[in-house]
Amino acid sequence: MEVFFATTNEGKVTEANEILKKVKLKILKEDVPEIKSIDEIETIVEKAKAAYKMFQKPLIVEDTCLFFSAFEGFPGTYTKFAVRTIGLETLLEMLNGKTRNAKFITCIAYIWGEEKFEVFQGIMEGKITENLRGVSKPGLPYDSVFIPNGFDKTYAELGDEIKNKISHRTKAFQNFEKWFEKKEK
Amino acid sequence: MEVFFATTNEGKVTEANEILKKVKLKILKEDVPEIKSIDEIETIVEKAKAAYKMFQKPLIVEDTCLFFSAFEGFPGTYTKFAVRTIGLETLLEMLNGKTRNAKFITCIAYIWGEEKFEVFQGIMEGKITENLRGVSKPGLPYDSVFIPNGFDKTYAELGDEIKNKISHRTKAFQNFEKWFEKKEK
Repeated sequence: MEVFFATTNEGKVTEANEILKKVKLKILKEDVPEIKSIDEIETIVEKAKAAYKMFQKPLIVEDTCLFFSAFEGFPGTYTKFAVRTIGLETLLEMLNGKTRNAKFITCIAYIWGEEKFEVFQGIMEGKITENLRGVSKPGLPYDSVFIPNGFDKTYAELGDEIKNKISHRTKAFQNFEKWFEKKEK
Repeated sequence: MEVFFATTNEGKVTEANEILKKVKLKILKEDVPEIKSIDEIETIVEKAKAAYKMFQKPLIVEDTCLFFSAFEGFPGTYTKFAVRTIGLETLLEMLNGKTRNAKFITCIAYIWGEEKFEVFQGIMEGKITENLRGVSKPGLPYDSVFIPNGFDKTYAELGDEIKNKISHRTKAFQNFEKWFEKKEK
């Protein structure tokens, strides 16, 4: 079963195809505009609608947010920009003296009509380190500061094989695949 | 001369009408979606286009960003959300040991056709305080932490009368008015 994935990030498609068993994702490589919102569900739904308008065919979009328990909604939908503007070092410092609990949420929306869509999530709770640990891959800077619950290593230290068995993104894609298989039957 | 102003913030319209001499602004009170972008010009242009699509008439939109010199592009287009998520106290702490230089930029876009628009800016350079100083008005939380260059008080301490003579927003609306008067001649 082929499904289109609107993203400019080829790495995400490769990673997702390693996770998925029956669905094969094909990239639609164009930048889809995102709205400014603090809400990750609104963000993914509006992104899906914008992508559907652009491509006029069924597809998925994906977005991953990190949430620090110490700050409600932060960096959240600002996750990517927070690294670029504030930088990882200051982000780690902001948590000094505060809880370092955090969670990663991957949201996927599958859309097959202007108002026909379904949202899937994968959540991983964990902790933010005090220093960088391990070398993260390009585009995944937080992997070297996030320790998933039940482990004592960061995603970067755990490596792809383990990470892709357990991660927030894995869970989200598995949830999507389970639903999609039923839908297509 | 009347001009429509698409905003949900009535306070902004009142303030701008006190600044403007010949133009009278009338509110179009509906929420205009903003795109997620780190660039304040792209943000205001896309907002103007979205508003024009909604209302189908000439109008202005406005957006104000604060930029800390210590972090490129931050809080920038995330200015409003940064207070809501990170909070002023932590924002002030983030600057400890770093430069407290900052600038406010107000962007206004006037749009009178799908691809016909003009952008105006007003910039005020200044410094971020270490503690809250003065009582800011609702919707303007940064006024109690921003000292404009050439003064030793925050906007909140200076009060409306002085602030509205010198502020970034004032400069932006004056730039718009000057241009608009010529255009309408």
